[in-house]
Amino acid sequence: MNQDAVRKSRPDFTWEHTELLRYKVEGSAPFRNVTRQVLFDDIAGGAQWRYFEVAPGGWSTLERHQHTHAVMVLRGRGRCLVGQQVREIAERDLVEIAPMTWHQFRAAEDAPLGFLCLVSCDRDRPQLPDAQQLRALRDDPAIAEFLEGQDR
Amino acid sequence: MNQDAVRKSRPDFTWEHTELLRYKVEGSAPFRNVTRQVLFDDIAGGAQWRYFEVAPGGWSTLERHQHTHAVMVLRGRGRCLVGQQVREIAERDLVEIAPMTWHQFRAAEDAPLGFLCLVSCDRDRPQLPDAQQLRALRDDPAIAEFLEGQDR
Repeated sequence: MNQDAVRKSRPDFTWEHTELLRYKVEGSAPFRNVTRQVLFDDIAGGAQWRYFEVAPGGWSTLERHQHTHAVMVLRGRGRCLVGQQVREIAERDLVEIAPMTWHQFRAAEDAPLGFLCLVSCDRDRPQLPDAQQLRALRDDPAIAEFLEGQDR
Repeated sequence: MNQDAVRKSRPDFTWEHTELLRYKVEGSAPFRNVTRQVLFDDIAGGAQWRYFEVAPGGWSTLERHQHTHAVMVLRGRGRCLVGQQVREIAERDLVEIAPMTWHQFRAAEDAPLGFLCLVSCDRDRPQLPDAQQLRALRDDPAIAEFLEGQDR
């Protein structure tokens, strides 16, 4: 582990002494073109501070869980689904995801969507929607349009 | 409290539904030209996520405490003192402040220094250096130069 108090950032939104990771194991959940970096682990009373980057046209997993997410967009733009809301998001916008709220992040077609995401180190596993839950989400035309073109 | 999951950022680095606060009560500790915004409170298992902005030529309090800080520069540039290190910092650089480590942030003369800072909601009060501790810090010429021009 790095002993230096400062880790410099690079122009490509990676950081010194910080590993560029896969978002999740391929095939474990639906997603497209997402990377993950853990910026600080077990900090500030047990939090993990991550940076995710969704490449243009990519998207994170549609999921929900008991733990909360605190999110700030750091790079680019895109849209997010949070509960029943589909919202445009861009640099420095804040997103708070409450417990058991369906959520997903999608990058614009022509820009990445990079965001900071804070969670507790001690957290539950995400749940994926089943067919009935997906149908219920798609009953809302705005959500149906948001989800269009994804594998599920 | 705002019920919307998304809070948009403004060009001046303030946010919707987020109060622009004083850094500390004036006179309670030495500092110059610093503002504070609490972006998320009691999130991710008990963390508080803040944004501080030091105006050009300003500086945060020189202090130490048992709790840790996880910091990311969001705007501008400046320098920080962390323990015995004086470092240049700029956008997206990460700073980790370990327990009981003297630290201070100074903005450049011609640019602000805005940074995200994560702490536990449950934390101890900062300690200020006494005259002897200040002398010990100033024994290092790099630190003496860093601290120059401050009231203490």
